[in-house]
This record gives sequence, structure tokens and C-alpha cells, in this order.
Amino acid sequence: MRSSKRQFDEMRPISFERNVSKHAEGSCLVKFGDTHVLCTASLEEKVPGWMRNSGRGWVTAEYGMLPRATGDRTRREASTGKQGGRTLEIQRLIGRSLRAVVDLQALGEMQITVDCDVLQADGGTRTASITGGWVALYDCLRWMEARQMTTVSKVLRDHVAAISCGIYEGQPVLDLDYLEDSSAGTDANFVMTGKGGIVEIQGTAEGVPFSEEEFSALMALARKGISRLVSLQQMAVS
Amino acid sequence: MRSSKRQFDEMRPISFERNVSKHAEGSCLVKFGDTHVLCTASLEEKVPGWMRNSGRGWVTAEYGMLPRATGDRTRREASTGKQGGRTLEIQRLIGRSLRAVVDLQALGEMQITVDCDVLQADGGTRTASITGGWVALYDCLRWMEARQMTTVSKVLRDHVAAISCGIYEGQPVLDLDYLEDSSAGTDANFVMTGKGGIVEIQGTAEGVPFSEEEFSALMALARKGISRLVSLQQMAVS
Amino acid sequence: MRSSKRQFDEMRPISFERNVSKHAEGSCLVKFGDTHVLCTASLEEKVPGWMRNSGRGWVTAEYGMLPRATGDRTRREASTGKQGGRTLEIQRLIGRSLRAVVDLQALGEMQITVDCDVLQADGGTRTASITGGWVALYDCLRWMEARQMTTVSKVLRDHVAAISCGIYEGQPVLDLDYLEDSSAGTDANFVMTGKGGIVEIQGTAEGVPFSEEEFSALMALARKGISRLVSLQQMAVS
Amino acid sequence: MRSSKRQFDEMRPISFERNVSKHAEGSCLVKFGDTHVLCTASLEEKVPGWMRNSGRGWVTAEYGMLPRATGDRTRREASTGKQGGRTLEIQRLIGRSLRAVVDLQALGEMQITVDCDVLQADGGTRTASITGGWVALYDCLRWMEARQMTTVSKVLRDHVAAISCGIYEGQPVLDLDYLEDSSAGTDANFVMTGKGGIVEIQGTAEGVPFSEEEFSALMALARKGISRLVSLQQMAVS
Amino acid sequence: MRSSKRQFDEMRPISFERNVSKHAEGSCLVKFGDTHVLCTASLEEKVPGWMRNSGRGWVTAEYGMLPRATGDRTRREASTGKQGGRTLEIQRLIGRSLRAVVDLQALGEMQITVDCDVLQADGGTRTASITGGWVALYDCLRWMEARQMTTVSKVLRDHVAAISCGIYEGQPVLDLDYLEDSSAGTDANFVMTGKGGIVEIQGTAEGVPFSEEEFSALMALARKGISRLVSLQQMAVS
Amino acid sequence: MRSSKRQFDEMRPISFERNVSKHAEGSCLVKFGDTHVLCTASLEEKVPGWMRNSGRGWVTAEYGMLPRATGDRTRREASTGKQGGRTLEIQRLIGRSLRAVVDLQALGEMQITVDCDVLQADGGTRTASITGGWVALYDCLRWMEARQMTTVSKVLRDHVAAISCGIYEGQPVLDLDYLEDSSAGTDANFVMTGKGGIVEIQGTAEGVPFSEEEFSALMALARKGISRLVSLQQMAVS
Repeated sequence: MRSSKRQFDEMRPISFERNVSKHAEGSCLVKFGDTHVLCTASLEEKVPGWMRNSGRGWVTAEYGMLPRATGDRTRREASTGKQGGRTLEIQRLIGRSLRAVVDLQALGEMQITVDCDVLQADGGTRTASITGGWVALYDCLRWMEARQMTTVSKVLRDHVAAISCGIYEGQPVLDLDYLEDSSAGTDANFVMTGKGGIVEIQGTAEGVPFSEEEFSALMALARKGISRLVSLQQMAVS
Repeated sequence: MRSSKRQFDEMRPISFERNVSKHAEGSCLVKFGDTHVLCTASLEEKVPGWMRNSGRGWVTAEYGMLPRATGDRTRREASTGKQGGRTLEIQRLIGRSLRAVVDLQALGEMQITVDCDVLQADGGTRTASITGGWVALYDCLRWMEARQMTTVSKVLRDHVAAISCGIYEGQPVLDLDYLEDSSAGTDANFVMTGKGGIVEIQGTAEGVPFSEEEFSALMALARKGISRLVSLQQMAVS
Repeated sequence: MRSSKRQFDEMRPISFERNVSKHAEGSCLVKFGDTHVLCTASLEEKVPGWMRNSGRGWVTAEYGMLPRATGDRTRREASTGKQGGRTLEIQRLIGRSLRAVVDLQALGEMQITVDCDVLQADGGTRTASITGGWVALYDCLRWMEARQMTTVSKVLRDHVAAISCGIYEGQPVLDLDYLEDSSAGTDANFVMTGKGGIVEIQGTAEGVPFSEEEFSALMALARKGISRLVSLQQMAVS
Repeated sequence: MRSSKRQFDEMRPISFERNVSKHAEGSCLVKFGDTHVLCTASLEEKVPGWMRNSGRGWVTAEYGMLPRATGDRTRREASTGKQGGRTLEIQRLIGRSLRAVVDLQALGEMQITVDCDVLQADGGTRTASITGGWVALYDCLRWMEARQMTTVSKVLRDHVAAISCGIYEGQPVLDLDYLEDSSAGTDANFVMTGKGGIVEIQGTAEGVPFSEEEFSALMALARKGISRLVSLQQMAVS
Repeated sequence: MRSSKRQFDEMRPISFERNVSKHAEGSCLVKFGDTHVLCTASLEEKVPGWMRNSGRGWVTAEYGMLPRATGDRTRREASTGKQGGRTLEIQRLIGRSLRAVVDLQALGEMQITVDCDVLQADGGTRTASITGGWVALYDCLRWMEARQMTTVSKVLRDHVAAISCGIYEGQPVLDLDYLEDSSAGTDANFVMTGKGGIVEIQGTAEGVPFSEEEFSALMALARKGISRLVSLQQMAVS
Repeated sequence: MRSSKRQFDEMRPISFERNVSKHAEGSCLVKFGDTHVLCTASLEEKVPGWMRNSGRGWVTAEYGMLPRATGDRTRREASTGKQGGRTLEIQRLIGRSLRAVVDLQALGEMQITVDCDVLQADGGTRTASITGGWVALYDCLRWMEARQMTTVSKVLRDHVAAISCGIYEGQPVLDLDYLEDSSAGTDANFVMTGKGGIVEIQGTAEGVPFSEEEFSALMALARKGISRLVSLQQMAVS
């Protein structure tokens, strides 16, 4: 029995609230249970220096956590003077995941920055960020389409969503909350597209190494979860 | 006529939503129109080094703005590597304002940090932060009272709230939004207590210097606005 | 009775020593009693990036304090790795105050940086900086006029000066020194022009909130003090 | 045909040179072909603050790259002022991987820092670092054993080694060099123990998403490669 | 003929003004011609962590330059975020030079920090800093002696002073100003004690390497200059 | 008798290993006994901003030390967030020394960066860096000559090499190792050209000031040592 009382393959309640920002071209408040992430997609009509005159655009992501998003207050990275290793690792992952379904050539020389700010954390903030970030990105492209700047379907090739899995008391389970994550033996994050292609896999043993069989079981669970997340994204944007 | 269509002495719709954070001891999502600030109050049972063994507690504040809280995306301070002058100035103001109504001796050797994170900005973020920060602080003290750690009424001596005023097209007006603020000739922020005492005044001429009479008119407006904010705080916490 | 033995409306001895720097276009060593600030105005024939090709110039200020300007040695900001909140707040104030009397259009695309470095501190360093900074700025413009680069009277519309006031043992007093400032109940800084227009007001309750009447008394004192500072500036530059 | 002319399951020449440092308790210069990493293990008889009095020890890693380890000179992180996201990500991975086979309780309150400095880079620097880092760690524990400070076999539970795989021109291949990595469609790093347990998996699609079958093929290759690396480690330390 | 019209062995007018700081235990405004350095010596009754409980004291120095001490305005190190290499090099030199004549054991567990801030620069700021820093240090020890904290003669074993020499248009000259320094072929700084012992030598070829004979000529000049500086120090403090 | 058992004028075994880097245009692993420095020379076809369009090139150096190059592990400067004063001082010295024998005009608008990374330290890292750096620089110019980009003999006017000397138990000795350096009374570094011109002299008293005679003795030793180093460089590159 999971501490969350959920079935081993049951995700937390998922919701997407669109247009939550007066200013951003696209925005989405995504909730995976008590994990709440505010995603905004901001369009700029210029690209990083190293891409200039390439004719291609860029999609990047930044990630942050409010100081009291967590159980104990975390020191503000702005006052620490730098982004920590975990933050940099997560925002690089979000960026790579979103770019995996974007045709940068079709986007043209523009940059979209997806900011994922965790208002409240309860495990799975990176997977919620990717999943909600896709919705914000989609809405940003719609905003552009409405202004004849692009065609959504040309730039955005597919959905992308992410979920975590883990081995909790010997049993593979889907979508760990913070409490489950803290006592899970293995923790894995999967990023997949709407068509089921794998974009990113990250699996880490906490304590005891895991076997290939265990890993396959986690991947099967993830596939199921991501398939449901993609359906929810479709409902959200239609 | 104001660009916001409001009367010269009319504030934007104000709301306080309490208990918006699963983790924080006190929290409040405050809205002054389209300006939305998430305030959390976090209790730590230790004080800064320079206060140790003084028997007194401390209340401090930090302020931040999500990158796309603004019309154009602002660079994230965590990636810039430092908090800007404006941020530091505002968070010092919030801290001073809240401490003005707290009996630090009665609090005892504990620290409460009030984080004010602007989710969406449309002018008046510092005044919303102070006004909403008071509610979060109140709830944190209530949380402590429920655990026999303190008595709210002994620690919190009064309400504190803040509002901006300005001279817009020659006319003193209350509670400027971003658009009005941008074209206002003079911009002043007032922080006052429930009993009407003044805690902080900041007035700045933008362009043309202002007269003592104009300043008095702004203060009269502010007094009216703050009196109303205090009533709203009372309703919110009762 | 003030600890300084001064009358409630008596300022400390004020002096301006001009041309104290071999290199700077304008310079002034200003003394408000034991508070000594070295102000230099440096001309550069380029403006910040965001102003380029605007046809307008810029006046900005930087503020610093020598490590042993204070009673206890303060850590050097250059070795700390950043300017503190107080420093940033003060230098922003000095810059805004000086710009309030400058016609940036008439200046043309040039930048003047006024550096205010506190050699010795005894309260009122920001007000001395503004008041002495104006003299350095004036001399820089004279230097330019002598080279047919500008006309002082077109660029510099008025004097600007600043003074602090406070409520010391229940009594409003003018121009607080460090000792008085430390025990003052309320501390207010006023920046005004030669014509008596108000440029900036900052009032802060230390401990007990203050009333509108008290604030008016402080402003009346300030007006008197600034009027005298402006006379002294006039004598200094004529 | 691989650009390196190697068979799809053929690793580059691997070598471990021990005792390359006069000062370090354990050290190893590991070569995976033209990728050369100097690994040192440094013992300190104290642990990080958060572990003090826990009775447990700590193993951590740091990673760096000499500026001209790469084809084009990279800017020195010491002069940039911070370690980049990639550096932080890699050194966190190395630390986690080594800790997976260490009994921190048995180590006792001491810290071993494994520094992995890339002298020359040609792809696979993180996998070489983990594999060579294990040898340095082993020698550090031997050094301690020789001084009756610990027993190697109690602290070090198993080998750990790492290898990269990728899909190169549609074909899964083992141990990519820089050139192959640059054009590989998918890039995956595997960290496994001597007994075959999985410690860490990181798979990233570059361009096109990959399938579960492709991923299984990569894992099979990795298993083979790591098995060989473990044999080489055994030979090196015996 | 030197551009300064001085004889080859003629120093600039040198002066020491003591007690220029209201707060510092010792202070001296030293002038080597147009080079003006404000030196303060600050006493703290604690030593750096690594010296604690050693029974020995410490003398250290910090060096800074006001932004417009130079012909062109230099960026403020506090805003740059770090002290430059030149600054660090100079302040290390000043500290080493002063410690060379101090008996740290006799000082006891206290730290004296000598801050050397260049108000105006015209070449030779490091030599002026050492020479004037000695006077500030002496006065700080006198301050301590007056409070029975130490005996000057036990702690301060000798004078220390410094001067620069250079080869200017083929001729060795003493005490270069900025203009001479800029065109000098070789630049050397000498630090010597009152008894004539050498504490530090730094010689640098600018352009063409120099010979041992030339260097000896510079040292002879320096010896003469330092001997005179020591006499001036003696007069200043007696 | 020296602790190293060497004669007073005997250097440690010196070796230069060329072409140790697959990527760098020039490279050299230099050993002065147990001091091992990896020097690489990197060519970039652009110069620093302030040299652009001057027609002249630039040679610069950077210096670093691996964390466990030393007896106790040193904190990594990349994680500290800045290069220490000692590092900056040394890399400035290396750069000046190399430029002393380079005709920057003949080089043309290109920059060569010589990175000196200490793999193992046992005293004399700066002198080894200069001496080995010259070899890397030479090979970089040869690489350019082979591509008709320059002529070595036109750009490189002479050899440059460096050695340390010190007074060890009252006796002047050549080429101090770490142990000797720690107990030496005076420490001096000399940089000279192949023709015997002096490029840089740095002498520091540790403890007791030194005399001119002692210094002359050190210089005589250094001259002998450098003459031998130049012969070894010649052998290495021929």
C-alpha cells in the first residue's frame, strides 16, 4: 500500500489551467496533486548570439522554486548568488525535452523561453514542468499563429510529457509524491512524445542498485502514465 | 479621467486569499487588481547571528518577481547572480514596515521570514506585498498560538498596510496601476498602521518637482485608502 | 537639548571645497560637520546602451564608503563581491535627485557620473552627497562650457540639496549627526530644489509610528535647512 | 562502419595508471582512448556540517576540464566565476555513482573527495571519470587500511564503472568518441556495479526520439562494456 | 631631462598628515607629489580563524582606488563584483612589507588592518601606501600604548618605506610619476627598512630586458630615496 | 646541507615533454623534479577588444592548480567563484615574461593563450610555468609556420626562462623545492632571456630582511640556472 493510498499505477489528480498570465504569450498553471508549477512561454524576436543569422529559432527553459514551495524554507537562489546544480540540471532537461518536439527551422529566428516556477512542491516538479511547459509553449505558438507569425502544426511536431516512477517498498509505482520519493529505492523520470517515442530517461538507484527487469517495469508504468498525460493535454488545449 | 476609468480616490479590486500554501505557517495571495503577490510567512526557531541570546526575535522579508510577471520578460535574478537595487530596496521596506507593528521582545528568539513573490505585476507590487504580507504574518502567529508558542495579540500590535498615490494629469489619484504609474508626474508610497500612524513615506518627483500642497493631497488620499485596506484585512482574518 | 548641543533648527558647519581632484572635470569635498564626502563628476562622451541615438544624455551617481569611514571598520564592498542594499539605495537616490534639475536633452549624448565617496561618516552621508554632488556636477558643466561643449544654464535648471530631520527626544530637529540619528524616533530625508520644489521625501519611523503633524514639522525644518544649503552652494560656486 | 573504425561493440583502448600523484591518498590516470582523466582521492578527517555526529562518512566528487582539453579552448571556470550546469551535473553523477558502492557507515566520520580533472577530452569524460574514480577511491581506502583506519572490503561493497552508448547511423554502438557522439542520434550513459546492478541510466534523444527496443539494445551493449571495464579495474588493482 | 623637471635622484615633495580620521586608531594622509593616499589603521581584538589561540597577532592591508583617482574614470571594484589582480597584488605587498617590521608575537592576539585608499593617483601608489601605512600603523600602536595594551617599541622593530625607480630615456631615475612611468623602460619597486635591510624587490622590464648593472643603479637610487623617506617618517611621528 | 641533498647550485632534474595534447597548437609537460606543469598554447584568430585594428597580436597566460596538486587538498577556484590573488599574480607574471620575448607586431592580429596547469606541486610552479610555457609557445608558432601563418624567428626574439633562489640556513641555494621554500629566509624569482637580459625580478624577505650582497649572490645563482634551462629548452625544441 502506497502512503498516498493510490493504486501502484494511479497518478495524482492532474490539471492544467491556461491563460493564467496577463502578460505572457502562453501560460499554464499545472498541478500534479499538491505540486503546482506556473509555466509561462515568452516570445522574443531575437535568438542567442551563437544562432544569429542561422535562420533557426530556439526554445529554452528556466526553472525556479519559490523559497517556501518546500516543507522547510529554501534559501532564495537570487540571494545565494547562483543557481544550484539541481536547478541547472532540471532547466536543461526541460529545454531539451521541449526542443525534441519543435522544428526550430520552422520557428524562424525567434526565441521562446519557457519559465517554470514551482509555487508549491510535493515531488515531481520537473515532470510537471515539462508537461505543463508544453501547454504554455502550445499557447504561445497559437498566439503567434493568430498574428500570422507562424503555423502551430508546422513548428510543434508532437506532444511531450513526463512522469516519474519508482520502486516503493519493492513495488514499481507511478508518479511519486514527496513522501514516497523520499523512501523510494529507485527513482526514474521518463520523457516521451505523443507518439510514444522516448526523449529522455533518467534512472537513479537510491541505496540498492536495480535490475533491468525492474527498470522495464518502471518504463511500462511510465508509458501508461504519459499516454494519459498526453490525453489530458489534448483535452486542455482543444 | 484616469486611464483605468477609476475615480481619483478609487482603489482597484482588492482581495486576500489565505492558506494558499500547503507548507508555510502563514500564507496569503493578495491581489490589487492585476497585481498578484504570493506572500508566505515561514517560522524558524533561530535568529540571525547578531541577535543570538538577545531574547528578541526578528521579522524579515524577501521580495522577488517571476521573470514574466512583467510586460516584457525580465532576466531572472538567480541567473544574473545578484538581486538588483530595486529588489533590495523593496524587501528592506517590507521588512521595516512589518517590524513596525511587531513586538520583537514578545516574539522571543524566533525568526519569521515573509516572502513576497510577484506572480503578476501591474503597478503597486510593494504596497500589495506589505498589505498581504501582514495577513501572512498574522496567520503565522495564529499557527504559533495554536501550538502555545505565542499570543498573537501580544506580538502583533496593530495592522499595517500600504498604498501608492500619484499625480496623474495634474490630479492626485489613489492606487496607480502600471500604465498610470508610467505617466504619473509624482509617485508616492505610504505605509500606515491601523491606528493611522505613519510608518514610512516615500515620495519621488518624476520630471517636475512637487509642492507641499500636492504632497498633502496625496497623503490624504493614502490615509483613506489605507483605512479601507485595514478594514479588508480585518474582514479577511476574522 | 540635543547631544550635539546644537539648536533644534541648527545645522552643522557646512563647507564645500572645490577643485580637489587633479583629474575630474568637476569635484567637491563637502563637509557636514564630521561627515566628509569626496564628490567627483566625470564626463564620458557616450551614454548607456539603452539611450544610444536618443539624442539625450545621462547623469548617474555611485556611492561608496571607505572601510574605516565608520566607527567600526566596515568590510570593503569590493572584497565582499557586491554592493549592499543600502549602497544601491543611496546611489539610486543621488542619481534621481541630480537628474531632477538637469535637462538631459540639452546635455546631449554624454554621460556624467558623480562619484560620492565617504571619507568620514557621522550621519547624513546621503544628504551631504546630494548637496556636494550638485557642486561637482556644476563644475563639470562649467568645464564643458569652457570648451564650448555646452551652456551651464541650459543644462542645469536649478540647485538641488538635501537634509535629514528627525524626532529626537520628542522634538523635531534638523541635520542629525550619527549619535542623534541612532536614538531618533523618526528619520526623514528631504531633497528640494532651489525654487523650493520637492524632489524626494523619505520618512521612516524607528520604533513608534509618527503623525502627519510631526511630519509637517520635519518638512518645515527641512525647507529652512535646504534654503540655507542652496545659499551656501551659490556662494561656493560664485 | 564507425568513423573510429571500431566494431559496434568495441571499446577504445582502456588503461589505468595508478599512483600518479605524489600527494593524494589514491590516484589514477585513466584513459579511454584519447580521453584522459586524472582522478585523485583525497581523505579528510571531517565531514560536511550537515553530517556531523552522524557517525557516517561521505564520498563526494568534483569535475573539471583543463581549458584546452577540448578542440577549441574553453573558458576557465575559475575565471568565469562559476561552474557551468554541465560541470555540476557531471560531478553530481560521479559522486552518486561512487556512493552507490560505498558503505558510509563503515567508512566512519571521514570524507573522501574524488577530483576528476580532464587533461584531454575526446568524448566519454564522465564515464571515464567514474571508472577511474573508482580506482582512485580504492587506492585511498587501501592507504587507510595500511594505517589501520579502515578495512577496504567493509567499506567498498563492489566495483562501479560506466560507459556511453549511442545510435550511430542507425546502429547501436559502444563507447562513443567525440566525433561519433556529435553525430549520434541518441546518447546514453550507463553506470553499473560489478555484480551487474544498475546504478544510473541517462538516455537522451538528439533529434529523433528513440524506441524501447533501441534502448534495450544500448543497455545490452553497455552491460558488455561495463563487464569488461570491471575486469580491467580488477587487473589494475590486483 | 625628466618630464617632471626633477633631478634624476630627486623625489617629489613628500608629506604625511596624521590623525586625519575621527574614527581610526591610526591614520595618515600621505602625499608623494600628486599621489594622495589615505591610510587608516584599524584595530580589532580578534585574529583570522587560522591564527586563533596561537598567541600571535596579525597585520594585514587592503588597497583601493577611488573611481576617479585616475585620469580616466575606472570602474568601481565594488560594482564589478571583485577586486582585480593588480589590487590583490598590491595589497598583498603592503601587508607583507608592514609585517616585515612587526613582531607578531609581541602584538598578541589582535589584528590591525591598514586600509590604503588612493584619493588621487599619479604613479607610485603602492610605494606611497607602504610608506604612509607605516605611519598609520605606528599611530595605531601609540593609541594602544596609551591604553596600556602594548609597547610600541616592542611590536614595531623598525621603519619600513618604499620607492619606485625606473630607467627613463636610458637614465636611472627615482620616484616616477605617472607620465614617466608610462614611458619608462624598466620599472622597479623597492621596500627597505630603516636599517637598510631589503624587504621586497620587484623589477619588471617594459619592452627591453635590463642588465644587472642597470638594476644595481636602480637599487642605489632606491636606497638613497628610502633613507630620506625614513627620515621624513621620523620627523612626522616625533 | 640542503634537505633535498642537492648541491647549493644544483637544480632538480628538468624535463620537457612536447606534443602532449591532441588539441593544442603547442604543448609541453614540464617537470622541475616533482613539480609538473602542463602547458598548452592555444591560437585564436582574434585579439582582445582593446587591441582590435591595431595590427598587433597578444600573448596572454592563465594559471591554475588541480585541487590535489598540493599536500593538502586546496579548494577548487571554479567552485570558490574566483581566482585567488596568488593565481592572478602568477598568471600576470607568466604573461609579461613571455611577451618580453615576443614581437607582437610581427605576430599580427592573433592571440595566443598559454595555459599553465599544475598537475603536481613541489615548489617553483611559476618558474616551471614560464620555462615550459616558452616551449609550448614555440611549438604553437612552429604550427603556425607550417601553415605559412608566420615565421617563428620573426615573432620569437629569444628564449625566456625562470628559476627561484633562496637563502636556506644562511646559504644561497638554487631552485627550491617546497620543503626548502617553506623554511627559506628569503625567496626570489628571476626571469631572464637567452641572451642574459633580466625580464623580471621578485625578491621577498620571509622573516629577516636581506642585504644587497645576499641578493647579488642569489642573482648569480639564478643566472647560472637560467643559462642551463635555456640550453635544455634548445635541446628540447631542436
